[in-house]
Amino acid sequence: MKIIIIGATGTIGKHITKALQQDHEVIKVGSTSGDLQVDISSSASIENLFKQVGSFDALISTTGNGHFGPLKTMTEKDFRVGLDSKLMGQINLVLIGQHYINPKGSFTLTSGILSDDPVLLGANLSAVNGAINGFVRAAAIELENGIRINTVSPGVVEESPVYFPYFQGHIPVTMDRVTQAYVKSALGALTGQVFQVV
Amino acid sequence: MKIIIIGATGTIGKHITKALQQDHEVIKVGSTSGDLQVDISSSASIENLFKQVGSFDALISTTGNGHFGPLKTMTEKDFRVGLDSKLMGQINLVLIGQHYINPKGSFTLTSGILSDDPVLLGANLSAVNGAINGFVRAAAIELENGIRINTVSPGVVEESPVYFPYFQGHIPVTMDRVTQAYVKSALGALTGQVFQVV
Repeated sequence: MKIIIIGATGTIGKHITKALQQDHEVIKVGSTSGDLQVDISSSASIENLFKQVGSFDALISTTGNGHFGPLKTMTEKDFRVGLDSKLMGQINLVLIGQHYINPKGSFTLTSGILSDDPVLLGANLSAVNGAINGFVRAAAIELENGIRINTVSPGVVEESPVYFPYFQGHIPVTMDRVTQAYVKSALGALTGQVFQVV
Repeated sequence: MKIIIIGATGTIGKHITKALQQDHEVIKVGSTSGDLQVDISSSASIENLFKQVGSFDALISTTGNGHFGPLKTMTEKDFRVGLDSKLMGQINLVLIGQHYINPKGSFTLTSGILSDDPVLLGANLSAVNGAINGFVRAAAIELENGIRINTVSPGVVEESPVYFPYFQGHIPVTMDRVTQAYVKSALGALTGQVFQVV
């Protein structure tokens, strides 16, 4: 199977790459590292990526930025960081990628626990994650030729201790459980699902 | 209580206006009608609205556009219709309005059933509605001085038969039940809630 991993060298992406690369052709994509580069905030950059890769069987996205900061001083410009990167970027991977993916292929995006279990400073990411969850439920009923789409919604992961002070009382999730959710999405048969890893 | 209703002459807004205007000072706002006008896709227009209104006790938003069309031909430009209007517009009403609202005031936004119960052609609105639901859950834990925020998430409403063919098997919700959800949000005590009216 030819699998594109966007964010392949990131905290989560490197584990997914390791889990899949022995049995599959994995194309590692990063913003500055990997086999190929993409700026997911640019639809032209995404189009260019797919032109280089050609057809593929699975795309896994573990990337995208959001704004993390107080609501009290949040501006439209702050809020659009998440809309342009983690949200529109991942949606564009699907809107454009649907024209390159093989029948029975799959898209797996990344949302996160904040949509339903918010923390202080996280309003932008709560919105972005909720949008991704809603999108995959809807896109799943329109994709044809057996093409599937899911999102993985992890809690704070064990390898990101820098976030722990902002996630008081949240139990960090193991990289193995998070990784397996992506594997389940890409190699399994479900579609339209939000795989919550908490 | 001084209550701003954005979309006051719309399908839902006119019923909320009717329910509240006898006992409260209702400021009816529309894009082209009402006491005052606002273009919610413009933060400058929103700022100008609040400057005209001054302090207030409740804001109810029942407005915002999204793109309704097939995923297969959807582009970033299509997708951004919902991001710029129904999503960023309503978020901006809160980001800017929080600096004008009175203590113990409330914001009530509008999302919709498609975040969780999608229909064909609705992927943009599924995303937008999911984002609004996530945002209110998060914003509620940061707003101070007893200020509350909720969203009403209605199913297809009985007075919009033009949408019925796109919502096969959905049971239209009565205007009275939808209206009461907004009243509950504005005059009640709950915060961070998604009031689903199905």
